[in-house]
Amino acid sequence: MGRVVVALGGNALLKRGEALTASNQRRNAQIAAKALAPLCASHQTVITHGNGPQVGLLALQEIATPGEDAPLDVLGAETEGAIGYMIEQELGNLLPFEHPIATILTMVEVDPADPAFADPTKFIGPVYSEAEARREAAEKGWVVKPDGDKWRRVVASPMPLRIFQLKPIQWLLDRGATVIAAGGGGIPTMYEPGQERRLIGVECVIDKDRATALLAKQLKADVLVIATDAEAVFVDFGKPTQKAIRRITPDALNAYSFPAGSMGPKVEAAQDFVRETGNRAIICALADVPAAVKGEKGTTIAMDAAETVFA
Amino acid sequence: MGRVVVALGGNALLKRGEALTASNQRRNAQIAAKALAPLCASHQTVITHGNGPQVGLLALQEIATPGEDAPLDVLGAETEGAIGYMIEQELGNLLPFEHPIATILTMVEVDPADPAFADPTKFIGPVYSEAEARREAAEKGWVVKPDGDKWRRVVASPMPLRIFQLKPIQWLLDRGATVIAAGGGGIPTMYEPGQERRLIGVECVIDKDRATALLAKQLKADVLVIATDAEAVFVDFGKPTQKAIRRITPDALNAYSFPAGSMGPKVEAAQDFVRETGNRAIICALADVPAAVKGEKGTTIAMDAAETVFA
Repeated sequence: MGRVVVALGGNALLKRGEALTASNQRRNAQIAAKALAPLCASHQTVITHGNGPQVGLLALQEIATPGEDAPLDVLGAETEGAIGYMIEQELGNLLPFEHPIATILTMVEVDPADPAFADPTKFIGPVYSEAEARREAAEKGWVVKPDGDKWRRVVASPMPLRIFQLKPIQWLLDRGATVIAAGGGGIPTMYEPGQERRLIGVECVIDKDRATALLAKQLKADVLVIATDAEAVFVDFGKPTQKAIRRITPDALNAYSFPAGSMGPKVEAAQDFVRETGNRAIICALADVPAAVKGEKGTTIAMDAAETVFA
Repeated sequence: MGRVVVALGGNALLKRGEALTASNQRRNAQIAAKALAPLCASHQTVITHGNGPQVGLLALQEIATPGEDAPLDVLGAETEGAIGYMIEQELGNLLPFEHPIATILTMVEVDPADPAFADPTKFIGPVYSEAEARREAAEKGWVVKPDGDKWRRVVASPMPLRIFQLKPIQWLLDRGATVIAAGGGGIPTMYEPGQERRLIGVECVIDKDRATALLAKQLKADVLVIATDAEAVFVDFGKPTQKAIRRITPDALNAYSFPAGSMGPKVEAAQDFVRETGNRAIICALADVPAAVKGEKGTTIAMDAAETVFA
């Protein structure tokens, strides 16, 4: 029984344009569970997921109500609870009753000296006018930047260095459990500068694909699957020359460039995993995950993909 | 190495009169971690916790912002994330780095036919005038009742029947991990009436002490500890004849009555655990937990407490 780590993209729990309600997320969790249950039944499976819209909504609710706003590490922990719960419950409704499933709250370490802290780039929460944004920034210590013709808060997205719950995740996999972990890229934490033994929360976000690749490497996964809304990695996406990559090496992928906000981080995470482990990574549509693990769908990134194969 | 299940009362994370902010909860989590770290180092330990004020605040934030309100199961899952995170992080700051700790999201089954659903009694969320309360009730399908001279939403508090994540909790304990589980009494779920295989969330709350007793019984814990803000169970509490019970049998406890909202459920949970397992239960102040497990503090409920001993 192989070991697979699957990352669910943000759209897996909220389709574009849908309102961020519990019932919409529940319906999407059912769709995700349907795609993943066959994999969970036949492999040691870890499921990770994004949390961007959910953290944004919680941040908005904090701002809209009186009192001190909860920091991003605490909001991240809340989304690991709520999203993990929905995925776990819906998976449980499809798998045999005896199949164990567990959601493990996951803390991830980042480096206070990570250059990302000097230049935050990740937009979070609601949009403001410039004046409002500057006022919020002064009051709350935020960094704000223009996003189109509006302004928003930006936070750092530093590299994940360590997953604190690695051993519990491993032990549960060893017992045959499906594990939901590292939601939202994990709860961001760091050792307090000058206090080597004191772990604290951090007001930042961690890229979900990077954290998933780290987890997959450390678990020595046979396959890393990044599920998204695209059926494959495309060359010349949106142009008449557009074509899907079927099979490619990490180095051959360097010849192409991908959008920083969407396919870029997925491709980088896949390259990183394949180079370090020699195992394969797959980028595919959520519904295609079972077929993609068999090599029948999506884009496979592998060291032995001697020549790039297009669809 | 004995196995201990410890329930943290709501006040362990929020002292009476304190504002429900992340920083106040963080400070209280540090106090709780200090009391529990010695126990975690010497026993297989499971920590459960309340979530009443936290769920109330999240419900308030949902009501205060536009859009569909998230249901109580989802809010409960959020609090398991946020509270579990703070306790886990602060415990980790006190235990050796190698000591594994994991927070397991916990779902608990209740019975749709539980009589509690016919007569909801647990107040939740903000207070309203009678007119406001009736309007909210009509709009959202709530049951509302008078609470003093104001009105509030009430929900059922049915009996916990099953803890779905029992095996993962057990497996982690077997590997020496400290486990945080069943926060807020667990996420309330039931099999959808008429749909035997479909588990769904429920708009209710589960008593944290009852869920903890169920977990302790099923884990065959050597000791159940219910940590609260009282140093012991008192007879004639607040009267000149007040005295602390040091040691007593479950049956002898029946001779006394305790307040339904506070000490009552703790005493019942302790009786239930001791009767079913033959092992001992302790009710004590949080700071006294390590001494109480050694029998030096708090009230011990045990089958072999031939005569009731008062302090």
